[in-house]
Amino acid sequence: MPDPPGPRVGRVYLVGAGPGDPGLLTLRGKEILERAEVVVYDRLASPRLLEFVAPGAERIYVGKKAGRHVVPQDRINAIIVEKAREGKTVVRLKGGDPFIFGRGGEEAQELRRAGIPYEIVPGVTSAIAVPAYAGIPLTHRAHTASVAFVTGHRESGKDDEATIDWKGLSTGVGTLVFLMGMSNLPNIVRRLVENGRPPETPVAVIRWGTTPRHRSVDGTLADIVDRVREAELGPPAVIVVGEVAGLRSELDWFEGRP
Amino acid sequence: MPDPPGPRVGRVYLVGAGPGDPGLLTLRGKEILERAEVVVYDRLASPRLLEFVAPGAERIYVGKKAGRHVVPQDRINAIIVEKAREGKTVVRLKGGDPFIFGRGGEEAQELRRAGIPYEIVPGVTSAIAVPAYAGIPLTHRAHTASVAFVTGHRESGKDDEATIDWKGLSTGVGTLVFLMGMSNLPNIVRRLVENGRPPETPVAVIRWGTTPRHRSVDGTLADIVDRVREAELGPPAVIVVGEVAGLRSELDWFEGRP
Repeated sequence: MPDPPGPRVGRVYLVGAGPGDPGLLTLRGKEILERAEVVVYDRLASPRLLEFVAPGAERIYVGKKAGRHVVPQDRINAIIVEKAREGKTVVRLKGGDPFIFGRGGEEAQELRRAGIPYEIVPGVTSAIAVPAYAGIPLTHRAHTASVAFVTGHRESGKDDEATIDWKGLSTGVGTLVFLMGMSNLPNIVRRLVENGRPPETPVAVIRWGTTPRHRSVDGTLADIVDRVREAELGPPAVIVVGEVAGLRSELDWFEGRP
Repeated sequence: MPDPPGPRVGRVYLVGAGPGDPGLLTLRGKEILERAEVVVYDRLASPRLLEFVAPGAERIYVGKKAGRHVVPQDRINAIIVEKAREGKTVVRLKGGDPFIFGRGGEEAQELRRAGIPYEIVPGVTSAIAVPAYAGIPLTHRAHTASVAFVTGHRESGKDDEATIDWKGLSTGVGTLVFLMGMSNLPNIVRRLVENGRPPETPVAVIRWGTTPRHRSVDGTLADIVDRVREAELGPPAVIVVGEVAGLRSELDWFEGRP
């Protein structure tokens, strides 16, 4: 697609920052961060990623601030478009992968509407890497041939949790990974059991996965809510439900490292 | 965990090679490939990844060879254990992510049983990156809050496709991504429609995604089998089923690049 007429328009890269361990950034992600003129970023699991950004580049934080609301998506879209129209190389840096619960699709649509060229740089998603660091393979020939990622988050004004087909999900997929589901954990557990998932199904809840602050709690659908409360484990965390969560005791390698 | 007594035991890294574009290897994956003494690898989407391996390192190919069978998993496990016992730093390089349909779980269990220390280096999975390069965000607030990855492959001696809960899967999850499902495409389509997924649901089939050989075919559950046949698109390919597959016409950026 040819650039629109007028002054040179910049290019926007929607870059997945990975799950937290800075070593899980991609080679292309690093290369693009290094030549970015503007970096628009959320709260990142690792601030070390910003070390790749050139000293002269503009850094715009659009994540949550203490006591303030998150920057609305419309405003983020407007910033990206505006900076690209100034001819800048813009990186929109997003935790995990930009297209897995990252609203990257909405940002790409906005850029397309504005006629601004963009590229997607996929990242290692927390939904896979956080369980992997905790010793959980999401698929395993002996246990399951399917895994689903679900957002357990209630968007303002829209209850995602209520729109989920719990009946199909509960038994239709072997491994279930919930992102942004911590505040909703009791509901998630209740819905799964009500819809036929056995209460003895293993569950692992992992906070700050892939980073040195990594903490996890193990249990089953029957007791995970109590165990998480006892451990005082808060959000954000990744919730893994399924037989494979039971492999943790055998396969853990990250927490047990010297 | 202390190393077992006797000669120094090496360490094994199960490394995700990413989906094909060598730029989607992780920083840590590259660093570990560079210091590997032995690299055990499958057929890779990009042979350029092996350029990171030191000239003196041993390279062991365990993928399919023309006219021959794939190296059995037991034999791969034995090679990895044997090389680690020689005190070597061993990389087991696997396409995509090692824990998404990569049998990484089985290899980790074998290493644990053998008392060999290992680490997992997650990778960018083809299940996410291939659709992303094709302009498909697997999740999107306006369309779905869930995505599932399913293997459509029939293992020798075991029919995965028959063990899938098609009733729950067909309607319980918004976006469905099938890996290794091309030879099974007619069955997959038939099962989804029989179990309540509307025939007009968009489908995209993408071969060699993220590489310069990238090719794709679009359609619906009603016509994708014919369209794939007409296009003579063979395996391996990623199959995406769901409303988000319909965003391709709007969001494609990779095929349309200059």
